[in-house]
Amino acid sequence: MALATFLSAEDVDFHAPAAALRDGADTPVLEAVAHAHTRGYDVVCLPLTTDKWRERWRRMCISTMGADELGEGAEAEARAEAWRANPVFELGEVTMTRLDEADGVAVMLSDWLELDATDDWVRHDSEIALQQELSYASYLDVHTAILPPPRNRDQIASYGRTINTCLSRTPYMQLSVRLPIYDPSIFRPHASRTSSPASPSFAPEPPSTPSIRTPEPPTTPSTKASEAELNATWEMWDIVRSLCAYSPRLTLTLDLTPPLPSVPGVLNRWAAEPIRHVFLPASTFIANGKGYPVLPKGSQMFIRDIMKHRPIVMLSRAGAGLHAKGGEAAYLQYVRHLEKTSPTVVQAKTPGTVENFARGYQDYLQAPLQPLMDNLQSVTYQTFEQDPVKYQKYEEAVYQALVEWPESEKIVIAVAGAGRGPLVARCLLAIERSKRPALVYAVEKNPNAFVTLQRRKATEWREQVELLFGDMRTIQVPEKADIIVSELLGSFGDNELSPECLDGAMRFLKPEGISIPASYSAYMAPLSSSKLYNEVRAGKDDKATETPYVVMFEAVNILSDHGGGHGRRCGPQVQECWYFEHPRRDAFLNEQGLPPTNSHNTRSAKMTFHIPHAGVLHGLAGYFEATLYGEVGLSIHPQRKDLVSKDMLSWFPIFFPLREPLYLPSNSELQVSIWRLTNQRQVWYEWYAESFLPVYHPLSEKQKSGSPRVDGRGSFAAAAATPFATPSPLIDAIDNPFITAERPVKVKEVTKRAEEVTNIETGVVKIGQTSLHNPGGRSSWIGL
Amino acid sequence: MALATFLSAEDVDFHAPAAALRDGADTPVLEAVAHAHTRGYDVVCLPLTTDKWRERWRRMCISTMGADELGEGAEAEARAEAWRANPVFELGEVTMTRLDEADGVAVMLSDWLELDATDDWVRHDSEIALQQELSYASYLDVHTAILPPPRNRDQIASYGRTINTCLSRTPYMQLSVRLPIYDPSIFRPHASRTSSPASPSFAPEPPSTPSIRTPEPPTTPSTKASEAELNATWEMWDIVRSLCAYSPRLTLTLDLTPPLPSVPGVLNRWAAEPIRHVFLPASTFIANGKGYPVLPKGSQMFIRDIMKHRPIVMLSRAGAGLHAKGGEAAYLQYVRHLEKTSPTVVQAKTPGTVENFARGYQDYLQAPLQPLMDNLQSVTYQTFEQDPVKYQKYEEAVYQALVEWPESEKIVIAVAGAGRGPLVARCLLAIERSKRPALVYAVEKNPNAFVTLQRRKATEWREQVELLFGDMRTIQVPEKADIIVSELLGSFGDNELSPECLDGAMRFLKPEGISIPASYSAYMAPLSSSKLYNEVRAGKDDKATETPYVVMFEAVNILSDHGGGHGRRCGPQVQECWYFEHPRRDAFLNEQGLPPTNSHNTRSAKMTFHIPHAGVLHGLAGYFEATLYGEVGLSIHPQRKDLVSKDMLSWFPIFFPLREPLYLPSNSELQVSIWRLTNQRQVWYEWYAESFLPVYHPLSEKQKSGSPRVDGRGSFAAAAATPFATPSPLIDAIDNPFITAERPVKVKEVTKRAEEVTNIETGVVKIGQTSLHNPGGRSSWIGL
Repeated sequence: MALATFLSAEDVDFHAPAAALRDGADTPVLEAVAHAHTRGYDVVCLPLTTDKWRERWRRMCISTMGADELGEGAEAEARAEAWRANPVFELGEVTMTRLDEADGVAVMLSDWLELDATDDWVRHDSEIALQQELSYASYLDVHTAILPPPRNRDQIASYGRTINTCLSRTPYMQLSVRLPIYDPSIFRPHASRTSSPASPSFAPEPPSTPSIRTPEPPTTPSTKASEAELNATWEMWDIVRSLCAYSPRLTLTLDLTPPLPSVPGVLNRWAAEPIRHVFLPASTFIANGKGYPVLPKGSQMFIRDIMKHRPIVMLSRAGAGLHAKGGEAAYLQYVRHLEKTSPTVVQAKTPGTVENFARGYQDYLQAPLQPLMDNLQSVTYQTFEQDPVKYQKYEEAVYQALVEWPESEKIVIAVAGAGRGPLVARCLLAIERSKRPALVYAVEKNPNAFVTLQRRKATEWREQVELLFGDMRTIQVPEKADIIVSELLGSFGDNELSPECLDGAMRFLKPEGISIPASYSAYMAPLSSSKLYNEVRAGKDDKATETPYVVMFEAVNILSDHGGGHGRRCGPQVQECWYFEHPRRDAFLNEQGLPPTNSHNTRSAKMTFHIPHAGVLHGLAGYFEATLYGEVGLSIHPQRKDLVSKDMLSWFPIFFPLREPLYLPSNSELQVSIWRLTNQRQVWYEWYAESFLPVYHPLSEKQKSGSPRVDGRGSFAAAAATPFATPSPLIDAIDNPFITAERPVKVKEVTKRAEEVTNIETGVVKIGQTSLHNPGGRSSWIGL
Repeated sequence: MALATFLSAEDVDFHAPAAALRDGADTPVLEAVAHAHTRGYDVVCLPLTTDKWRERWRRMCISTMGADELGEGAEAEARAEAWRANPVFELGEVTMTRLDEADGVAVMLSDWLELDATDDWVRHDSEIALQQELSYASYLDVHTAILPPPRNRDQIASYGRTINTCLSRTPYMQLSVRLPIYDPSIFRPHASRTSSPASPSFAPEPPSTPSIRTPEPPTTPSTKASEAELNATWEMWDIVRSLCAYSPRLTLTLDLTPPLPSVPGVLNRWAAEPIRHVFLPASTFIANGKGYPVLPKGSQMFIRDIMKHRPIVMLSRAGAGLHAKGGEAAYLQYVRHLEKTSPTVVQAKTPGTVENFARGYQDYLQAPLQPLMDNLQSVTYQTFEQDPVKYQKYEEAVYQALVEWPESEKIVIAVAGAGRGPLVARCLLAIERSKRPALVYAVEKNPNAFVTLQRRKATEWREQVELLFGDMRTIQVPEKADIIVSELLGSFGDNELSPECLDGAMRFLKPEGISIPASYSAYMAPLSSSKLYNEVRAGKDDKATETPYVVMFEAVNILSDHGGGHGRRCGPQVQECWYFEHPRRDAFLNEQGLPPTNSHNTRSAKMTFHIPHAGVLHGLAGYFEATLYGEVGLSIHPQRKDLVSKDMLSWFPIFFPLREPLYLPSNSELQVSIWRLTNQRQVWYEWYAESFLPVYHPLSEKQKSGSPRVDGRGSFAAAAATPFATPSPLIDAIDNPFITAERPVKVKEVTKRAEEVTNIETGVVKIGQTSLHNPGGRSSWIGL
């Protein structure tokens, strides 16, 4: 995190005397910037233009409208046309004129420009002015410019188109869209909501300077806010960045001026967006018991959470003495305190956590390992051997299996895929602890790792371990095993071909023998992340969007919630795709003890997720959970990992990207299809998704009177057969940001609402789909 | 059109004696094919496999399920695994064994294969069988294979994925998906609708051969069909072809066995799809008064209409004597009669129609002309000079202007952009007819065309015409004109820069002078066409999807209807984008009489279309309409062209493609934004679209009692502010296919339905969007 201060004309006298503009002289801007640094700010943000510019622009571009009758039109129009042909500033219209003044400064462009005005000419002339300002900022080598906020949903496409043009004409600058998390006007009385676009509802004209306005204090809401109202600013952002084709130079400046809603779903979505700045005026702070400035609880939590974006937190008017105690330093200290206590920062500093182990790997795309096709390097083994949890779990599983094993003279354990030997070592520990008579075979096909194994046998293990060099699918083993132990799992369970390898190893398992792991499942959840979407596209290669990646998620948002949806057909937030178990029951095998085909290892899954809040699907998150033995397991399932194998480091989740983002409205349903396919030489995944929205259908009198209802679910027309249906009737109660723990929704209210909609029938209508990814395994596959 | 016959095992004895399989011998198949050709069929379609194959497949792949308890499982499973590892036919399982038998034959693959079965293993083994059949058909050099129909919406993604694999593994064959226009079971009693996917509802297992089953006769419907139910088969087709990435080798075989609904919107959508075959069993025909086979009116109209696809019409059982009179020949004659009387065929044969003039140009993409940047070839002028209507309209406009001109000694006419002189000639004719004193200046900048003008002056026009060589924007003219006549319009009106050129020409127009044309507008409509989508993509160049094309539409469907939608905010089917008029009023000009900037020629438009029936948006159709003078105009607006300028040949519509298709559900709304943008050197268009769906919102008691309602329309949150709304309550009445002209919807019924939904409030929710096309004019622009 960096701390910034926004200095407006209230803080700096931009109309400096001419003497101060001479090269070498100390200008008010230079002084203000230097002063801010001494107060502890890393970055200073200044407006680029002054009132003079605003006045001239308005005289040229606004006051000509309707002036023709007065005979003043022609002259103003002449000035405007001259300016449009050659846009140029006059001295005094810009806050900075020298390169040293702009050094390291972020600028706020004229926020009174209306790129989304209803009037065609205001839009047109705002665009010319914006280009003029950006061109001047670029001349001063400014690296970051904060754009005037969008205000008018009806013209948001024009706003987005203009910003896209700016991005291509200003090739190096970072542009940032300033937006509140929601439109605060939705909680004001009716009158202010129908305000014309010319006086925008959440960013009205500032009194005289382009500083961000101090908001009205939060009031008790006069109406409840609907889901769509809370979505409105995010929806505008989504359109703007989509029109700008997810340019990596387009970021967000979140304006935290209005109080935050308490609905996590509405806030979580911002975590998946490129937040660059957080705008935090002193007026947003409240006084604590001692009079020092602190933030309301919702804002605290939110800022702590978004610290993972390493944002620039921009304070304004912190020196204005709005709070009784602490002075300006108190605001800075408070924000630094939020950073230090943010979960991301805390975890990253705690040894033994995945976050600490994986620093620098957040949202970094890695190709999944193919240990069957490739012989791993020693350094790769070493990385994974560092995991204390995984091997402890294996030791425990082997231990319990041994302890529970029936009376026997000798228990034969085979480690299938021994690598450099970590499982062998753990088996030996388990044998020692269990005091059972046992012997270990270690099978390994990597000739390089086999050298390490030989060294360890010679120096550590001696006759307790027999080494066998070869592929477990073909190797001849001197005797059959009671227990086969393997660590062949990938982030998605089967994606490193554990099923196929263990099929081969089952040849040397006794009929009543067991496999550790005994079974594993793959899980999925729908994911939003503009970061990952851009990372995938940065690959340029078309195949980059057709291949899964291993990645430690950070700037992401899982779009699904805990089920429900139309007819309750939606499953939980994270859903099981499929399941493998070893040994297989009733398997048909040839004379070599191998399955004649790999058909039994194909899988397909179709899952339905409920999407409570509008979002953009960029891909699918994949996880696995395995049962090693009995109650001992391994899990990276986001809701179960801490329960099953806390602080395990070996696996990041897997990410199945989408070529094109899929927009999902609030209360929609997402059907994900994924296939695990195979031929004689390869295994691959294909994936695809469709989206649906509940719509309603009024019942005819006849239908009400009880004639049999058509229901095609599962049959020919399935989802389409009952077309118009209903979202939850509770939708507007759920998302009232002012419903807190102290004032829960009353059950009685809920019942009443449900009754009101009895003449509504439910169903869903299809609204979108993705393309089929990785068809035929053409772009990515795993070699058998 | 071609005529085909489908021969099933009822028609041909596929289990021929071994003697008949010898090379050179005449087999039953060869005899049947030869006999079909003598009866007038162009193509023969045969099943590829016999009952024997079906029985073996079922024994292997179906009867093993649950057989384990009987101890028969292992043996069957061994056979199945052996087959999966090496799929091979036995003699007698296929209908053809020799290359000459398959010569020119289309095959129907085993239609009992369930690629979309609910059971994983049935799906898996159906896919292997299908690949086996395709591989064998490919061996026999078969060019067209009709696929088993999809039956299960729930597993349609699996079906589509499989077909996509087939397309890539069988590189040359055309694959065709057989589908009825709707699922006929929706009009059957309730019981048959909940049929399990294993006994599919519209394509049940044929009794013993894989021939297409004779349907039950059409019955009075027991329930009304909803919009979504009528959509169901199209929706499945859309998913399949999307999963197959719009492969040009994937076509449709429309099964016209069930009676057709009378709703044009539901039928029109098929016009935009790649219909290759139409399946028409003899049982679909009814007997006319004399006992001859004819088709019901709906089917007649539909078949006439789709003749533009030049389909293969496939009859079956025409020789079975189902109708009293005419024998087999009567069916063929009847279909040929439908072809001859189809509008497409009739128009193409009528001289003077666009369809006749433009044969071979249907759905062919052309880059728009840039006559300002490029000097046209004489042959291009010649093509456009052939238009009898356009120049007649120009002559009439000039004539009327002259007749109405105030008393004057000399009326000066300037033809701005004279080309090879057609407008000059028409001006002279108008002058002669009007008997007014007038003189013509002809301005032309194309040096090559100027030679033609000089020849015509020397030989035809003499002193009646003065020639001026140069660009109308800069040329000096000896005297100012009373009337400037130009023909600078493109398919979209302004897309050949008529506004910019005429801005320059206005310098030499007298203050009270007029321009012919006086004004023009651009129009748009949302278009679906898989053909055009594929044509655009065939360009391979990424820019191909970012540039407009001139194209004569044929296999297209306009998705919008005549307005309505939520809050009636949707405009008509074809909507006006913008308007230009000449001369401009109150224009500000510099000393040279030119506008200092081109800002006044920028335009933007945002249009909202109502989409009654689910469809896929592939692009936007563009048209223009111009007023030449008074009531005289030119128009290619689809609903007005015949009124304004019937049989005008010069302009095909323009097509703005989309990079990715946008799915639009029934009753959705489409907002299209388009911009005409300019810099000092270029003009270009950018376009973008968003889709919305009405959803409902139950009113709370408080809201019902009359507290002021939030309505954000036009303000900040606009479309999103009132989120959950209602489609037309009439939706299921509108689309009942059995409502015909004889039984219109009663007004009383409508009112009643509207009352039922009074506790529903309306709004729309965003469901999708396109990308921004041609940003910054990077991919296509018009040079100034």
